[in-house]
Amino acid sequence: MNNLNYKDLLGIGQLSLETIKLILDTAESFKEVSIRDIKKVPTLRGKSVITFFYEPSTRTRTSFEMAAKRLSADTISLSASSSSMVKGETLIDTAKNLQAMNPDIIVIRHSSTGAPHLIARHVRAGVVNAGDGINEHPSQALLDLFTIREKKGRIEGLKVVIMGDISHSRVARSNILGLRKMGAEVTISGPPTMMPDKAESLGVKVVNDPREAVKDKDVIMVLRIQLERQGKNLFPSLREYAAYFGVNGNVLKYAKDDAIIMHPGPVNRGVELSSEVADGPRSVILDQVTNGVAVRMAILYLLIGGLRVGNVD
Amino acid sequence: MNNLNYKDLLGIGQLSLETIKLILDTAESFKEVSIRDIKKVPTLRGKSVITFFYEPSTRTRTSFEMAAKRLSADTISLSASSSSMVKGETLIDTAKNLQAMNPDIIVIRHSSTGAPHLIARHVRAGVVNAGDGINEHPSQALLDLFTIREKKGRIEGLKVVIMGDISHSRVARSNILGLRKMGAEVTISGPPTMMPDKAESLGVKVVNDPREAVKDKDVIMVLRIQLERQGKNLFPSLREYAAYFGVNGNVLKYAKDDAIIMHPGPVNRGVELSSEVADGPRSVILDQVTNGVAVRMAILYLLIGGLRVGNVD
Amino acid sequence: MNNLNYKDLLGIGQLSLETIKLILDTAESFKEVSIRDIKKVPTLRGKSVITFFYEPSTRTRTSFEMAAKRLSADTISLSASSSSMVKGETLIDTAKNLQAMNPDIIVIRHSSTGAPHLIARHVRAGVVNAGDGINEHPSQALLDLFTIREKKGRIEGLKVVIMGDISHSRVARSNILGLRKMGAEVTISGPPTMMPDKAESLGVKVVNDPREAVKDKDVIMVLRIQLERQGKNLFPSLREYAAYFGVNGNVLKYAKDDAIIMHPGPVNRGVELSSEVADGPRSVILDQVTNGVAVRMAILYLLIGGLRVGNVD
Repeated sequence: MNNLNYKDLLGIGQLSLETIKLILDTAESFKEVSIRDIKKVPTLRGKSVITFFYEPSTRTRTSFEMAAKRLSADTISLSASSSSMVKGETLIDTAKNLQAMNPDIIVIRHSSTGAPHLIARHVRAGVVNAGDGINEHPSQALLDLFTIREKKGRIEGLKVVIMGDISHSRVARSNILGLRKMGAEVTISGPPTMMPDKAESLGVKVVNDPREAVKDKDVIMVLRIQLERQGKNLFPSLREYAAYFGVNGNVLKYAKDDAIIMHPGPVNRGVELSSEVADGPRSVILDQVTNGVAVRMAILYLLIGGLRVGNVD
Repeated sequence: MNNLNYKDLLGIGQLSLETIKLILDTAESFKEVSIRDIKKVPTLRGKSVITFFYEPSTRTRTSFEMAAKRLSADTISLSASSSSMVKGETLIDTAKNLQAMNPDIIVIRHSSTGAPHLIARHVRAGVVNAGDGINEHPSQALLDLFTIREKKGRIEGLKVVIMGDISHSRVARSNILGLRKMGAEVTISGPPTMMPDKAESLGVKVVNDPREAVKDKDVIMVLRIQLERQGKNLFPSLREYAAYFGVNGNVLKYAKDDAIIMHPGPVNRGVELSSEVADGPRSVILDQVTNGVAVRMAILYLLIGGLRVGNVD
Repeated sequence: MNNLNYKDLLGIGQLSLETIKLILDTAESFKEVSIRDIKKVPTLRGKSVITFFYEPSTRTRTSFEMAAKRLSADTISLSASSSSMVKGETLIDTAKNLQAMNPDIIVIRHSSTGAPHLIARHVRAGVVNAGDGINEHPSQALLDLFTIREKKGRIEGLKVVIMGDISHSRVARSNILGLRKMGAEVTISGPPTMMPDKAESLGVKVVNDPREAVKDKDVIMVLRIQLERQGKNLFPSLREYAAYFGVNGNVLKYAKDDAIIMHPGPVNRGVELSSEVADGPRSVILDQVTNGVAVRMAILYLLIGGLRVGNVD
């Protein structure tokens, strides 16, 4: 079929360990394209990539577009707000209409869990889930895995803590799945109201206190507090969240010296992360953004699969 | 001048029978580009296509952009809502400003009848009418003609019924003009309030009852009920429209077995068309979308006219 | 570093006379690209240009995009309104995130004076100020200088009047700086409420009456009255502005026969400029738009600086 042996990238849950490694290895070979003098390879010339975002996200959309353009694919960007296609039209009809224009890949973000999966079943094009509800955000997890491996040399055996609103975070969910598959030990941390009901079934430990949670960890992944997504009753105020659960210099004293700090962005400075930490020497937040382009190049390339891996111009 | 002998494509009314056939034949040769492994020909490399939509339309805009990109043209997409160009500026000034940047084609959709014609008189670039008010939508009619010819082998002598709000539909108007030129026999059908005053002068028959209207027809073209465009007093409710004028399995019993069902999209399922019919074996709705890209490639190619027809790389 | 010896183009204030001349000369060699049959050179192939507009501006954004595409650069267009990147994120964070995707140029428009300068200090990419608050709009001034030189053969020694709301106009400010550097004599004109406090320190003369102001001038540059930007109390009404300060046929009687009329667009017809004047033989308004693409090609090319000047394919 293609180099990924999947038509779509819908979630980390679907991927074998070998596939995850293939994506990370491929991304490694693509990373240098973005620092070349000519930041472009002809690999996907004549391929069409549609980005269709039902929720706004400049960061992820731009990263996918940049990835597609650096592979010489054509990109068309649709947003639900500007889309009359959506008026009175079912999601499946929209998908079938896009398919009828013969794109190679449809990158979709949707507020409903499972929307990309539904679309994937009705189109021949490869579908990339760029975030569906509170379910999965696989390209984010893959770029996080890539960044961890790049900084730490490995993932297996590492101790990782994910901090914040775990129960409403697709980033957390995809990362937990990916980190567990790659053999990392995962702890989650945050207010009890933000922890999933059955954390044990995810194979993670729960430690509420942030100081205790960061102890002995190799990777400290802090999530964005998404005021727009959750109800307001999960914690009393931003100030209280910052005081009790924010990651700042005081919390970091309890962490290992070589722990890396990650965040999917955009950072709410002074809420979940203090500026001191976000801009500190252990922060790899901007590396994550850089690696995002490389990982998405790998995803597009492997899904379209015109060439053999390693055969990058 | 170019292969079309017109600077612009403003309406089906302007086109000779030979020109329509030239466009359909050219589209036929472009259709296979979109199913190639490399979906791109260098035909319009170095040409600039501006899409300027004063009314939102993801479907048509995406189709034109896809067509332009598959011909290797550069595309720039403007929308009136994001456009400060429009603030306090006349339509002609906007057009002259766009012209000053030397585009080759301006694709425009506007809520006012005649807006593309006005622009066409003030610019050197080719102007493509992508829908003006309730006047014309020529690329839609051309892709419909293409689809009919593809499915039926011919257009001349066919019996076609167009069903819905004929008097407010630019799709109906362009199709009636095109079908009549190509020698089809056209019937229109729908509530009396939605029929044009002088149907006879258009060379069409009027049959209100849908069951009678579909009888003996080769092509059943159902229009979208555009709630946003018309007043609400043309029919009492959507439910009543669906019951009395919707095309469903019961209506289709009166049609020929090999009649094809067309719809310009997006479909209001359960209103003008039942799902049973929209998804049924006689439906060619998604073929219309696919053919739309090919027909728009032909339009752009012929208007720019850098190469002789047939000389597609 | 590159051919401009600057990483960024932030304002005319920063540019030496030699640099301005280099940009204008380079633009001259690029101007013919836009009238070629194939309007494209491979000069910036594999380079990425991000346009990021916090204020809407189709005209300037389209001009930059057209310029980038005609140089074969990849373009990605962001707007603040559609940007979740901006939510709860500082301008510097946004800039660093964009940088992490390795663009070559970031073109930015922002309502705050100094925003592009702030960004420029935090990114490796070249930053082009496409208008910041009431401070500068350097690419507009450069295209104006280009147009003056093209029409008049020189700039040194010319008499130029800039008319309108000088104190709130970044176009006026950039032009005054550029014209003075190039050796032109500059007069400003308009209601006293719209004149800057210390006009003399800018090296310009103030003449309120428009008929007196246009006398003996080689260039009459009329600014757009920006109702959206200023308070309403600078003049009683548009009608009164038009009557006392609008440039119309009556005012033009006092001007030299070979004076050229300029305007940055979009024109408020009948307010700051009558149609008679805007469309008259002395108007070079549309030449400004055409030259804008060439000047922006030169800016992008010189900032990226992959090739030696003159070595345009």
